[in-house]
Amino acid sequence: MAYFDAASSAPLHPVARQALQASLDEGWADPARLYREGRRARMLLDAAREAAAEAVGCRPDELVFTSSGTRAVHTGIAGALAGRRRAGRHLIVSAVEHSSVLHAAQVHEAEGGTATRVAVDRRGAVRARAYAEALRPGTALACLQSANHEVGTVQPVAEVASVCREAGVPLLVDAAQSLGWGPVEGGWSLLTASAHKWGGPSGVGLLVVRKGVRFAPQGPADERESGRAAGFENIPAIVAAAASLRAVRTEAAQEAVRLRELTDRIRARVAEGVGDVEVVGDPERRLPGIVTFSCLYVDGETLLHELDRAGFSVSSGSSCTSSTLTPSHVLKAMGVLSEGNVRVSLPLGTVEEDVDRFLRVLPGAVAAVRDKLGAPTPSTVVREDELVVDARGKLCPIPVIELAKVIGDVPVGGTVRVLADDEAARLDIPAWCEMRGQEYVGEEPADQGVAYLVRRSA
Amino acid sequence: MAYFDAASSAPLHPVARQALQASLDEGWADPARLYREGRRARMLLDAAREAAAEAVGCRPDELVFTSSGTRAVHTGIAGALAGRRRAGRHLIVSAVEHSSVLHAAQVHEAEGGTATRVAVDRRGAVRARAYAEALRPGTALACLQSANHEVGTVQPVAEVASVCREAGVPLLVDAAQSLGWGPVEGGWSLLTASAHKWGGPSGVGLLVVRKGVRFAPQGPADERESGRAAGFENIPAIVAAAASLRAVRTEAAQEAVRLRELTDRIRARVAEGVGDVEVVGDPERRLPGIVTFSCLYVDGETLLHELDRAGFSVSSGSSCTSSTLTPSHVLKAMGVLSEGNVRVSLPLGTVEEDVDRFLRVLPGAVAAVRDKLGAPTPSTVVREDELVVDARGKLCPIPVIELAKVIGDVPVGGTVRVLADDEAARLDIPAWCEMRGQEYVGEEPADQGVAYLVRRSA
Repeated sequence: MAYFDAASSAPLHPVARQALQASLDEGWADPARLYREGRRARMLLDAAREAAAEAVGCRPDELVFTSSGTRAVHTGIAGALAGRRRAGRHLIVSAVEHSSVLHAAQVHEAEGGTATRVAVDRRGAVRARAYAEALRPGTALACLQSANHEVGTVQPVAEVASVCREAGVPLLVDAAQSLGWGPVEGGWSLLTASAHKWGGPSGVGLLVVRKGVRFAPQGPADERESGRAAGFENIPAIVAAAASLRAVRTEAAQEAVRLRELTDRIRARVAEGVGDVEVVGDPERRLPGIVTFSCLYVDGETLLHELDRAGFSVSSGSSCTSSTLTPSHVLKAMGVLSEGNVRVSLPLGTVEEDVDRFLRVLPGAVAAVRDKLGAPTPSTVVREDELVVDARGKLCPIPVIELAKVIGDVPVGGTVRVLADDEAARLDIPAWCEMRGQEYVGEEPADQGVAYLVRRSA
Repeated sequence: MAYFDAASSAPLHPVARQALQASLDEGWADPARLYREGRRARMLLDAAREAAAEAVGCRPDELVFTSSGTRAVHTGIAGALAGRRRAGRHLIVSAVEHSSVLHAAQVHEAEGGTATRVAVDRRGAVRARAYAEALRPGTALACLQSANHEVGTVQPVAEVASVCREAGVPLLVDAAQSLGWGPVEGGWSLLTASAHKWGGPSGVGLLVVRKGVRFAPQGPADERESGRAAGFENIPAIVAAAASLRAVRTEAAQEAVRLRELTDRIRARVAEGVGDVEVVGDPERRLPGIVTFSCLYVDGETLLHELDRAGFSVSSGSSCTSSTLTPSHVLKAMGVLSEGNVRVSLPLGTVEEDVDRFLRVLPGAVAAVRDKLGAPTPSTVVREDELVVDARGKLCPIPVIELAKVIGDVPVGGTVRVLADDEAARLDIPAWCEMRGQEYVGEEPADQGVAYLVRRSA
């Protein structure tokens, strides 16, 4: 069995387990109390805060522990927006942030604020200039992830921080995917992270607010954690989080080289071994352990089942594996293929043999899914100048499969009109055209759906 | 060493420890994922939910796990108020709720809602009739604790629930102090609790929303826990919470009898052994493990230090042990003495010897504090009809000590005018009068403080 979904949640690091067990006896009392058990709990909490602050590169009194990374993001954004209310109510986020950031932006808009979503390039990266263009007099806060959680692309945080600083706007960095690898560089103002992403326990997030940043915690008052994280402190888990952060940092440099070699291998080999694959994300500026690719004519959920049966746990941004029936907002913002999407994120210590076995299993698994769905084989019979494919009522990847089946049936210069009502088609038909060198003409409203027009170029 | 502050946080129950350790290996993955590790995590989560729901007496799909009891309260109140927005914006709470409830009420008022605080009697209990009187057409929600966290008084939840039900208003019950002892009876609509109060781990709260209760979660959207508790689930802690709740319930009946006998002993013995003590809270309708008393002429913080040095960990609602310099809002609402306040809350398994040793140590500890502060000894010299004591700039319990020192210096019928600027005097001077059979005349504004008038009756 191989678990390749560390970007969702990493297995508990041995140091986290030891620290958790050791502090269960000392860390259960209320650290606000003055008696012996309370003082011991307070000492553990203070020591954990110092260790975490050192790893982040901030002062201990700038860092509070929250109950999750999501909670750190929600609290950080709400508090920073409220603290800068006088400056204005404009928020900037990238289009590929974690859903916790995007949902906080939606709440802000619902409450009368405005939000700009900064676009990314096809590799998933923002440009600092795009943030500079989005900044305006009423901007209260900007948010940018340190690295993307779905494709691993590293963002130009230091440049964006510098652009924001010039405008006097604080930048909140969601460092959930990268903090285990190293501190976030640049002049950021707020930072959030999540312990279970680096091998710490569930139930611990970090929220850092630099001194001098205006911050007004929202919600009911609570004295704990400087008024920034309501509720009784989970000290054993906090101790385990801090201890494991230090531990993974000591392994980080070596593991980064090793995992990068393994993900490079996957990047190279899926392209040749599987065929009709788009490897997405920046090939250079990326996290060491993440590689993401999408397979044409493949239903992501079925592929994940095939891989799970073969002993591999991976995730997917395909619409067919989500409860919302829409493709991942990250893949959508990048404009890349979403069907048959697979994210491989290797935990620390992943062994080479597991990766090689994955690469041996993958082509067969993809082929099996394609067979099942009746993926196209080339056709040579040219019949008409325009063909209509009715894929309404059919879900991803069927509309693309239907398109691919008939494109050879029209002459070069002829068009295929694909009728579809699945939201994923809007992303995947243009992506297919780009991969296949066909011309995507555009879309038109159609009866109960959308018509996507594709001109055969070759 | 004896830890007598279970009402703040209970030591981890052995079953909680076992369950936590056992589920660290199985419960770290994302339960929303479809692969093997995710399915195992989901199974653990589902099983914990079923166990907790059975202990609460609700359906599993009515219960979600939050990151703390405080978070459950904040989420529960905000969601219920928003869900009933059309009915109105009036909230009812008791005056002796946990600060998490009162702070949520303050936020509600700051946002334009209204709140009624239902008074309690001298024993700390509300009357159902008082809730009936507070209910009005625009009432959206009522809140009542199952039992008080500072004095142990059990509230008439079933009666209040029935009054609310007749008016069509949901009742939220904060069951943090009582859930380990048994399910909350009556027709309540929402319920909250906190695992570390019953010997579960930190980091787990419960929020129950009965089917049919209108509920609109506030804050950024998040799919986890039915949209009612944002952030990655802390499954090992959730498993430990549910397992320990079942475990403490099997011991509850027997421990209730045993602890009640021990707290009865404390109630009886502090009154005789220490002298000038007010034992507060309902002597009958109360939690088995909690007993609270206040000692005249004693500074609570110094007493806690003395007891800590003697190996006893207790807490206090005195103003001098809080960071806000105001006495506990619970003691204030009850109108009882707050100076020299001590809450003893016995954890499960407390041994009789520790309680007896506490009772042997306490009188000496109180006497030592009184000696240090120069507490009064009877005076027989009657000099004037009105004496003025200037205790401005002096903190609790000094104003009461000064009063007690001079009351014998005025003839029966004469008055003492105590000038004080410490907030605790407003509570403690009338309480002292009641304990001493002296007449409290009232207060008047004074230069830089308040004048409290006391007439010597005996």
